[in-house]
Amino acid sequence: MKDNKNNSILLSHGDGGVKTGRLISEIIGPALKNNILDRLEDSAIIPCRGAKAAFTTDSFVVSPLFFPGGDIGKLCVCGTINDLVTSGCRPAALSLSFIIEEGLDINVFKKVLESIKNTLEEAGEGIKIVTGDTKVVEKGNADKLFINTSGIGFIEDGPGISPSNIKEGDNIIINGNIADHGICILNCRQEFGFKADIKSDCAPLNSLVKDIKDAAGSGLHALRDATRGGLARVLIELSGSSKMNFDIYQDKIPIQRQTRGICEFLGMDPLYIANEGKMVVFAEEKNSIRILDAMKKNRYGKHSAIIGRVKGIKDKNRNASVTLITELGTKRVLDLHYSEQLPRIC
Amino acid sequence: MKDNKNNSILLSHGDGGVKTGRLISEIIGPALKNNILDRLEDSAIIPCRGAKAAFTTDSFVVSPLFFPGGDIGKLCVCGTINDLVTSGCRPAALSLSFIIEEGLDINVFKKVLESIKNTLEEAGEGIKIVTGDTKVVEKGNADKLFINTSGIGFIEDGPGISPSNIKEGDNIIINGNIADHGICILNCRQEFGFKADIKSDCAPLNSLVKDIKDAAGSGLHALRDATRGGLARVLIELSGSSKMNFDIYQDKIPIQRQTRGICEFLGMDPLYIANEGKMVVFAEEKNSIRILDAMKKNRYGKHSAIIGRVKGIKDKNRNASVTLITELGTKRVLDLHYSEQLPRIC
Repeated sequence: MKDNKNNSILLSHGDGGVKTGRLISEIIGPALKNNILDRLEDSAIIPCRGAKAAFTTDSFVVSPLFFPGGDIGKLCVCGTINDLVTSGCRPAALSLSFIIEEGLDINVFKKVLESIKNTLEEAGEGIKIVTGDTKVVEKGNADKLFINTSGIGFIEDGPGISPSNIKEGDNIIINGNIADHGICILNCRQEFGFKADIKSDCAPLNSLVKDIKDAAGSGLHALRDATRGGLARVLIELSGSSKMNFDIYQDKIPIQRQTRGICEFLGMDPLYIANEGKMVVFAEEKNSIRILDAMKKNRYGKHSAIIGRVKGIKDKNRNASVTLITELGTKRVLDLHYSEQLPRIC
Repeated sequence: MKDNKNNSILLSHGDGGVKTGRLISEIIGPALKNNILDRLEDSAIIPCRGAKAAFTTDSFVVSPLFFPGGDIGKLCVCGTINDLVTSGCRPAALSLSFIIEEGLDINVFKKVLESIKNTLEEAGEGIKIVTGDTKVVEKGNADKLFINTSGIGFIEDGPGISPSNIKEGDNIIINGNIADHGICILNCRQEFGFKADIKSDCAPLNSLVKDIKDAAGSGLHALRDATRGGLARVLIELSGSSKMNFDIYQDKIPIQRQTRGICEFLGMDPLYIANEGKMVVFAEEKNSIRILDAMKKNRYGKHSAIIGRVKGIKDKNRNASVTLITELGTKRVLDLHYSEQLPRIC
């Protein structure tokens, strides 16, 4: 990769931004190329006797292990459930694989397990951990605890949900305040001493997605959870894969005042800050109000809002793009030059 | 856990032996209990519209990353394929999740990817990597590269293959020399300076299992790959879960002379040393010769041998056990007091 003179993996290769994209497109992709992997969606869809299975994986290396609103255990269950439901499937089963640093306090490990159990209960729908693995490495060769969760689900009959279904005129909806997870982790780690009460938004969104589907009928086109790289990354990626321009209205994007305040103070753009409980919904305009109402009634969607709109591409010679219409009425094209400003946020 | 006064995770909690068992049964199990996880088989079986899906996960932390006969990339693909085929399923898709230490040479990463690609080709049957994840942690917070692979497969019609199907009178067959993987890694790491040419047996065993199934008809009862904890651990676990006694004939167990020599020199028992390409087969006696012939014709089964026999439990008041009948004709009951003598062998 041209921009990396010393030819070694950098922290930014794992931040979900430009370098991660290049690592995937220039190195991993060419080696492992196939028609399912190449779609680069959060869950892979695999045919299973007429039915379809969704399959996803994520490793969690968050630091610290515990933070306001969550911990690595809650995070791994929510992250995997959320990746599954974006494909429109019903999550069926999760795996759990631990890499533990020698010397980890067993009570810390138990607390993480308790949190995993509680989060599975919170998610409901009979989602279970069905298989697992445990490895221990010598002290100094890992940082306390890393967890991989993979998940499978089964796609039910009904209209397909996929970025490729995004259509001109769709409304873009989000289920609440952005940037809380990233700022919460930052606040835990950096000891800035902000006296802010910002909790991670970490949440299992399966019930929210169920409510969205029930309200939407065939009017639901795509879903994506906005994690590493924030809302901006998801919008840019989906604009690229759907080949549609999006307009986003800055004044419609829900954000807590104190989160926005910290972002402004630090010069960080909240659009690029990670969330762990935010779903971006693309739906037909005529169904949008019904979907929005259903979302607001769900415990994870109280602050839901329509934040933008899908425009077709007028000029076929240009790539699709995401335009932020600022509070001042000016326009700014979002790009991936930013990367997640903080390593190990999930 | 009673035997751990300082209440922290030890390397032996990850070795596949007694402490790993306790960590699972006393801490992880109670927290996450459910009817699928409780079976503790290598793959979980999940109902999928009349069909059944098999689901497995493993994290790989082997050190060094490259060793004679394999590397972490080959290992992760083989390990996951082998776990899937032990459930009798056709492997369909794998996930791949990297935890990379900042500073890893990209050429090392490329070499691992190349090996993953080659191993998928070696395995054939259209097995693909369909989804993945990449995380990078700061230098000093991981050891170069850890990989998680999870896998799903679909169970085909036919007789069930499960430890619970093991029957009195079954023959126990293995597909070749034991202990090569563990001794190979030991030889790489410890600089004993043995001038031995011992290669890891790391191999994708899906074609071998296919040949076994074709030859066995309904006479195939159970399969298990003998990895961490070696042949002994697999036999002890399956004796426990099937509630049957096994007799194992030491002089029938295939082992390379130089591997045996190193084990004797170091006072290690090769029965407890890890393999990465060994499948233990339980089959009806009348089908055994046909199965053995089929195994010997497969590239991964040239040194296959019948090594033991399933005996019923005569005394219902005693636990099932595995008896090794030594070359001298004496008997020794195998137990799990031993643990894997080397950390990070996979």
